[in-house]
Formats: sequence, C-alpha cells, structure tokens
Amino acid sequence: MCELLGMSANVPTDIVFSFTGLMQRGGRTGPHRDGWGIGFYEGRGLRLFQDPSASAESEVARLVQQYPIKSEVVIGHIRQANVGKVALANTHPFVREMWGRNWCFAHNGQLADFQPAPGFYRPVGDTDSEAAFCDLLNRLRAAFPEPADIEALLPTLIQACREYRRKGVFNCLLSDGDWLFSCCSTKLVQITRRAPFGPARLKDADLTVDFQAETTPNDVVTVLATEALTDNEDWIVHRPGQWTLWRGGECMAEGCDTLSD
Amino acid sequence: MCELLGMSANVPTDIVFSFTGLMQRGGRTGPHRDGWGIGFYEGRGLRLFQDPSASAESEVARLVQQYPIKSEVVIGHIRQANVGKVALANTHPFVREMWGRNWCFAHNGQLADFQPAPGFYRPVGDTDSEAAFCDLLNRLRAAFPEPADIEALLPTLIQACREYRRKGVFNCLLSDGDWLFSCCSTKLVQITRRAPFGPARLKDADLTVDFQAETTPNDVVTVLATEALTDNEDWIVHRPGQWTLWRGGECMAEGCDTLSD
Repeated sequence: MCELLGMSANVPTDIVFSFTGLMQRGGRTGPHRDGWGIGFYEGRGLRLFQDPSASAESEVARLVQQYPIKSEVVIGHIRQANVGKVALANTHPFVREMWGRNWCFAHNGQLADFQPAPGFYRPVGDTDSEAAFCDLLNRLRAAFPEPADIEALLPTLIQACREYRRKGVFNCLLSDGDWLFSCCSTKLVQITRRAPFGPARLKDADLTVDFQAETTPNDVVTVLATEALTDNEDWIVHRPGQWTLWRGGECMAEGCDTLSD
Repeated sequence: MCELLGMSANVPTDIVFSFTGLMQRGGRTGPHRDGWGIGFYEGRGLRLFQDPSASAESEVARLVQQYPIKSEVVIGHIRQANVGKVALANTHPFVREMWGRNWCFAHNGQLADFQPAPGFYRPVGDTDSEAAFCDLLNRLRAAFPEPADIEALLPTLIQACREYRRKGVFNCLLSDGDWLFSCCSTKLVQITRRAPFGPARLKDADLTVDFQAETTPNDVVTVLATEALTDNEDWIVHRPGQWTLWRGGECMAEGCDTLSD
C-alpha cells in the first residue's frame, strides 16, 4: 500500500509542513520505502520531483523540504511497491497532457485482474495505477473529444472510479491544475484550515507550526491524506465511495457512490 | 535564442561537467536568464528538473550540479525568451508520452507564422517550440498508428524538421530514452569522447575534469551543444540541414537535408 497527499488552496501555499510529515513514513515511521513523488502546479506548468529511493533518505526530498515551493494544487505520494518493480517509471504521481493541460494522478491501493483495452494514453511503467490513469484519460477523451469543464466530466470520472473500485482498492487524487478530485475506496482523510488558524503538530516528526503566523485571514487550505498527518486537529474521515472536488481550497462538489448502486 | 545540451552514452554517465558549463550561460557568462531545464532518462522513467529563473541563480540547478545523476540519454536547455512569457509551462525540455514511452524535446530558434492544425497533443504553454513538438508527435502518430522503430520514423521526422526550418530557425534535440535525434538549422556542435580519454576544460567556469580518471576504456559518450562547452577539445560543427541519430554514444544514422531539395 501507499500513502497519498493532496492540497488545494486559494493562495499559493507551501506544503513543507505536511510533506515533512509524509516523508518520515517513507522508511522511518512508515514502511513506504519504494519511492516517492510530488507534483506542484505553477500556473499551467507542473513541477514534478520523484525518486525511487526511500523518501526519508532521499537527497531530492531534502531539497523539496528546504525549498518552499508555493502552489495552489499539489499531489504527493509515497510508495510501498506491490505491482511493478521499484523504478522511476513506476513512481507516482503520473502525468499526462490532455487538452493542453497537465493532468496529474496518484493512487493508493491495488487492482486485481485489470487489463484495460489499449488506447491513446499508454503506461510507461508496469503498475496497475498508471494503467488505470491512462484508461481513465482514454475514457474521458472518448466521451469528450473536445475540452469540457470538470463539472461535465464528473459522471464519467465517477463511473470509471466505480469500475476500478470493483477490481480492488482505489483511493486516488487527480488534478488538471485548476481543481483537485479525490475518490475514497478504503482510506482518505481531509482537513480544511481557515481563520482562525491555530498550531498544528506533526504525528511523524517533532515539528509544530503556528499557521496563524504564516497565513492571512482569507487563506483557505484543504489537505487530503491517507492518514491524518497531525495529532492535534480533527481530520474528516471519508467514507468508502465518497468523492470530492476542490477548487481554491473549497469543496465544489461531493458525493458518495456505493458499489451496490 | 536559447542553448541546447544533449548526451548519448553507452554506460550511465553523469553530465555534471557539461551542465556546470551550460548553467553559467544562464545569466553569468551568457544572456539566457529566462529559465532552464534538464531531463535525465532512467530506464523508461524520465527525471525532469526545470526552473523559470536564471540557471546561474537557481536552487534546483545547484542541486542538480551537486547530485550526480547518471543517465544514458540527457536533454538540457537554457532559455532566452522570445515567444511566450517566462513561466514554468514555457520552460524546455517538453515531455509527452507516446506509445508508452516518454518523449523529450528541446528547441533552439524561433518559428514565424507557425499555426499547426490542432491535434491530439496540444501545447500547455504558449511557445512556438512546444507547438512544434506537439505537431511533430501528431504527425508521427498520424503516419504510424502503432509503435514503430526510429529507423522507420526517420523520413517523417526529417520531413517535419524541414518544414519547421522553412518557417525560421529550428535546432532541436529529441529522444524517447533509447535514441537521441538532433536537427541543425543554424548552430549545433558535437563531440564524441572515447578512450584514450584526456582532460577537458570548461570555457564558462574555472573547471577542468580528467575524464580518464572517471571512465572505463569502453565508455563512449557523445555530447551535443549549441556552442562548444570546452576550449581544449575539437568539437565537430554541424551543417545547416544536418541531422544525426545516436544510440549508446554512437552515431546510428546521419544525413543532410538541404532546403533547396
């Protein structure tokens, strides 16, 4: 299994605090030694850092922690390999250009007997996760030959997630840089921080941050993660089948899609 | 204008030496202040570092210089903006997945009146360079619906480069991680280093490396650049219209395509 990290904010925000907590689980406080990656949107561009080595020991991870990159949308992942060997090509998040935007995807879980029909987007590595991402984009592109708003895409997206959840565990984060979408199959938690801000203390490292000193009263920052990253805040636990859509830190849409539907 | 850097080697080789020279031209010994990027293939994976700030002052560039990443194929670029604002989305090299491989592209030059028909691959930023890369992939994909060897793709590739050269200046580097292709419109030089290796001295920084101490007798490393990076070696100057194809540091094919054809 792996762990996910996502952020949606209404102002460019650095994710050093949450990232520092997550990185400890990559070989120190957690078993996710098989690589890590994080994508930061900067305008329409995407800054992607990845390493197939354990995040707790990664030179590149140290750079990312020391170099506060501010972004409105972030997707991160630490990996404990099940399908696919430990290699850069198998390291999340995965990126594809669709409709002139960078789409970024990370997955926690495992799909059994997943053999999607080959389409335009094809996996570079050999994980079930990247195969699902390519299949998802191929489905969206087949249903919408020309660019469409995320609101119009949602039914196709939720239907695809339902099919993947039928094949195993499929917790995921997806973004095109404008919005952040999540789907919970088994494990996903969320926190929205807004004024009045308070202190937050990491579970996995001896680090406390006072968000009041680092924010303005209008800032809204939502963080999604596989497990709560702090131990003094209330994280909202997502239910199996729950999906959410975020823009600027605020929830734009959400729902719960049960498999018995 | 911009500057290109490419490497093809038969063993994983670090490009710290050449990269250190090139980075000086990004604001110190050269005017290319508008961003830089470098992609290192690692198996089928691609490690991409980019920054829209001047390479001579970039934190990420310092990391890349201190952290010797070994690769068999590398494409790098420093930018002096002409078309498209200074932004991450306009920073070379550009990457797209095609046929389950990461294709990486960097361009030096400028195209006038370049309005390719929109296709499957679409630019994220607003440079003529990324538009040409997308057009090139759309042409290859239209001509070859299924994966084909680079040798089979060459005529389509060379024909596309000819059309771009008719619209302006088009020096480029392209790779899918296996081979490295170059096209010279106005400026491109090359050196192939093999035993007996000797010392090399950078033009742009006070740095000399003794390749004999860092290589084995079987190593073959070819470097392509817009201008010679060392001042004590003989770089081969490519002619306008000259294209080359490299694999494992060795030239697999080359030719010269003159516009009067």
